[in-house]
Amino acid sequence: MSKTPAAAKRGIPSKTDFKEWYPFIVEAAELVDKRYPIKGMDVWRPYGWKTMRLIDDLTHKEMDRTEHEEVNFPLLIPEDLLDKENRLVSLLKAAREQGVDPSELRMEDEVGGFAKEVYWIRHAGETELEKSMFLRPTSETAMYTMFPLWIRSHADLPLKIYQMVNTFRYETKQTRSFIRVREIHFFEAHTAHIDEADATRQIEEDLEIVQNLMNDLKLPVLVTKRPVWDTFPGAWYTIAIDVIMPDGRTLQVASVHHYRDQWARAFDVTYEDDSGEQQFVHQTTYGMSERLLGAIVANHGDNQGLVMPPSVAPIQVIVIPIISKQSSEDMVSEAEKLVSKLKEAGIRARIDARDIRPGQKYYDWEIKGVPLRIEIGPRDLANNSVMCVRRTGGKTSHPIDDLIEAVENELAAVGEDMNKNSMEHFKSCIRDLPNFSVDGNKLVFDEQIQSGIVYEMAFDGNDAEAEMIEKSTDLSFLGNSTTSYSKSRSCVMTGQPTQNRVYLAKTY
Amino acid sequence: MSKTPAAAKRGIPSKTDFKEWYPFIVEAAELVDKRYPIKGMDVWRPYGWKTMRLIDDLTHKEMDRTEHEEVNFPLLIPEDLLDKENRLVSLLKAAREQGVDPSELRMEDEVGGFAKEVYWIRHAGETELEKSMFLRPTSETAMYTMFPLWIRSHADLPLKIYQMVNTFRYETKQTRSFIRVREIHFFEAHTAHIDEADATRQIEEDLEIVQNLMNDLKLPVLVTKRPVWDTFPGAWYTIAIDVIMPDGRTLQVASVHHYRDQWARAFDVTYEDDSGEQQFVHQTTYGMSERLLGAIVANHGDNQGLVMPPSVAPIQVIVIPIISKQSSEDMVSEAEKLVSKLKEAGIRARIDARDIRPGQKYYDWEIKGVPLRIEIGPRDLANNSVMCVRRTGGKTSHPIDDLIEAVENELAAVGEDMNKNSMEHFKSCIRDLPNFSVDGNKLVFDEQIQSGIVYEMAFDGNDAEAEMIEKSTDLSFLGNSTTSYSKSRSCVMTGQPTQNRVYLAKTY
Repeated sequence: MSKTPAAAKRGIPSKTDFKEWYPFIVEAAELVDKRYPIKGMDVWRPYGWKTMRLIDDLTHKEMDRTEHEEVNFPLLIPEDLLDKENRLVSLLKAAREQGVDPSELRMEDEVGGFAKEVYWIRHAGETELEKSMFLRPTSETAMYTMFPLWIRSHADLPLKIYQMVNTFRYETKQTRSFIRVREIHFFEAHTAHIDEADATRQIEEDLEIVQNLMNDLKLPVLVTKRPVWDTFPGAWYTIAIDVIMPDGRTLQVASVHHYRDQWARAFDVTYEDDSGEQQFVHQTTYGMSERLLGAIVANHGDNQGLVMPPSVAPIQVIVIPIISKQSSEDMVSEAEKLVSKLKEAGIRARIDARDIRPGQKYYDWEIKGVPLRIEIGPRDLANNSVMCVRRTGGKTSHPIDDLIEAVENELAAVGEDMNKNSMEHFKSCIRDLPNFSVDGNKLVFDEQIQSGIVYEMAFDGNDAEAEMIEKSTDLSFLGNSTTSYSKSRSCVMTGQPTQNRVYLAKTY
Repeated sequence: MSKTPAAAKRGIPSKTDFKEWYPFIVEAAELVDKRYPIKGMDVWRPYGWKTMRLIDDLTHKEMDRTEHEEVNFPLLIPEDLLDKENRLVSLLKAAREQGVDPSELRMEDEVGGFAKEVYWIRHAGETELEKSMFLRPTSETAMYTMFPLWIRSHADLPLKIYQMVNTFRYETKQTRSFIRVREIHFFEAHTAHIDEADATRQIEEDLEIVQNLMNDLKLPVLVTKRPVWDTFPGAWYTIAIDVIMPDGRTLQVASVHHYRDQWARAFDVTYEDDSGEQQFVHQTTYGMSERLLGAIVANHGDNQGLVMPPSVAPIQVIVIPIISKQSSEDMVSEAEKLVSKLKEAGIRARIDARDIRPGQKYYDWEIKGVPLRIEIGPRDLANNSVMCVRRTGGKTSHPIDDLIEAVENELAAVGEDMNKNSMEHFKSCIRDLPNFSVDGNKLVFDEQIQSGIVYEMAFDGNDAEAEMIEKSTDLSFLGNSTTSYSKSRSCVMTGQPTQNRVYLAKTY
């Protein structure tokens, strides 16, 4: 870590100017370096990568708890495997033509549409390859090619695997660190089950895992069943998890998909059931990415820089000896003792013994969002105490004898402050959709629609009505909240009673 | 993990037939699946990936201890960055022409020679890219493009970073799981220093790290300074770490390179010294890969399957309840209690409560190389004891009250057995080069040269003499051992006294 980031000296933009603040802060806090000569591919610097790995550790723990096993698939996918995806498209088209569950099967016409977004490899060394390959954008195709080899009987089910790998998308939109990138640090869980009900139970487990992670990261979220037109191709339904960013736009940070047996039919993933019959498995997936870090940066940061959730802060406590001319060595060695004690207790602590003014040190660690700063000077030492300063505000003196307990409580308090602040922001962004009248195929609202607001409403209308709302507001349907209204309300379009709570927002 | 790998039922080839045994065992033990439709790109299955991650954890710990910081660079490298590598070639050529240290600068004519071994990306979506990019085979070019942005003054040095990433080589030779693959699970450390001496200290630290890792993995190694013609392009010198495989061929599992300031000159990596002058940094790198796992499989395995070093065994202890008709539930619950106790003590333990014969269970866990098996049956329980069976042979009964201590000792004993066995093999493979007479430009040996033997000799000759030995034996110089002879011997070619101990072997 270089000592005083030159960027930081230039002064941090106000967070109210989020578009300026965000790109400035990810570099000033040394999370990434954007000067690598490919757009949308940042270099992860030690502080950023360590944070990401700590986020990943939380995910690993949840995966262990729920008995998922980690695998690692090749990055490259041969083009001809797409034949099976095309088969999926045909199967779905046929089903649609036969009138089977048409609303449920509505999807983009080509699953293979993502072919427009992948990087292709057609040359190796000086050779033109016979078979084109592409860099995985996600691993359904690679994995489901292997599943039939691993699944024989019901005893092999459920199969629950996951991986954390780099995936690639040829983004043509504007890129943004962690939020929209071309090399993605990706988490994907894939499961196979004996039937639809068991796959549905998996979706429930996934949502519980998401909730645990979001609690650790102090991020309130919207959980919605995406509208059919925004469902992952090949999925029966998609449940997405969105964070509300400082500008009121929503950022999808996780999604879970129920595939039923659609992919299994295309990839011939079957098992022998109790009675010796071959059955198709039902599948689910669950995806997340470095967007989790983007959401942490955006939601918790302030005008002084990052604020790191204690659960994933690479440095939870920075210890700063307050040095006077008489006492410099003493204070450094006392500070080192504190750091040793904290480390022994499993707390990520570090000393800053640089020969610069304390104010400069405070500034550096505030930018990096270290949750707790401990100052120890001659007067503290005389009182056998230390001063604890929370990144979220407030300072308290604690006796050194109670150091570990005090620090644990202070870190918990920072977490609570973060929860409170992010929940306040979250609530302040959500409002009921204003009343409106219909003028032709346009809605005229009583109050102006704001792009920095997430609107909620009771809605039970059809796609055309949803489209009318989207066009009139220039916002997008996130979908039906998994938390319905407790009592029926009138649908804003049809007036019919419904408990469906729908969110509408400008999305990233 | 599927229950009884079908492959295993077919019977394991004898390890004396190493060529058959190795590919069989990596699949039967469920380390990888080779049926993915790209040659040289295996799917890591949970058991294999978990082992690799435990190996990586050992490396992470060593990196923490030695204050390296982890980064993560983009996979893709724009072709035009190679211009700087070409500059390196020109610089080295010029130095050679000026007669500067010619022997030290001998290297392949083109650093860019690896361009023949990379995968190229020239298309994304439906677009032909303006700038070609390639998948990193290693990260010098990507990293040293950023170093000048991070290094300003001597206060930024030493810079010590590392990453664990996927790298790619378009192998045209026969591929082999872990040993020669096209997608490589790669570790690379890169450092920059104020001068040559500090870089040399880094090389020493690297060799200490290697030795710690090899101790944990129970792998004896040859450490040699590679001959100039086998030095990494752009390196001043390369020290390589080789394992001796069961067939007597050597496998390079790690290498460290001292670059002096050669790359720094090509990439303009400078710092301001104390007196305000710009100086080039001196650099080193240190690389390892999944070959470590290949070496574990090959060196420790036997006719029953893998033998996992306790330090990286995903399952260190498998607990098997010996079930009779009267006592089945009791034994399972007793076994579960043991597993809980072991886990609490930080030991990776697991129960096998499947409803199959114990013999079948033993067989499955032997294939997977679990270091210790604990059997608990009604008779053991009556004696308040358990039976511990070491994967390396031998069984001992221990009182349940001493479980943790007993298991820790048993695991240590397995480690010692592995050390002893692998050291025996290692020593048995190394012999003095037989006496010879010179016939024209060929050597005629008193005894036949064997490809399964690593020959050592005192050697202080020139390149032509080394080449004569290589051609006459059909073996390769590994280079000068870092452990010289304690007393001078006569060089086998020149007869001059030397302490240089040189190894000659057939290499992977």
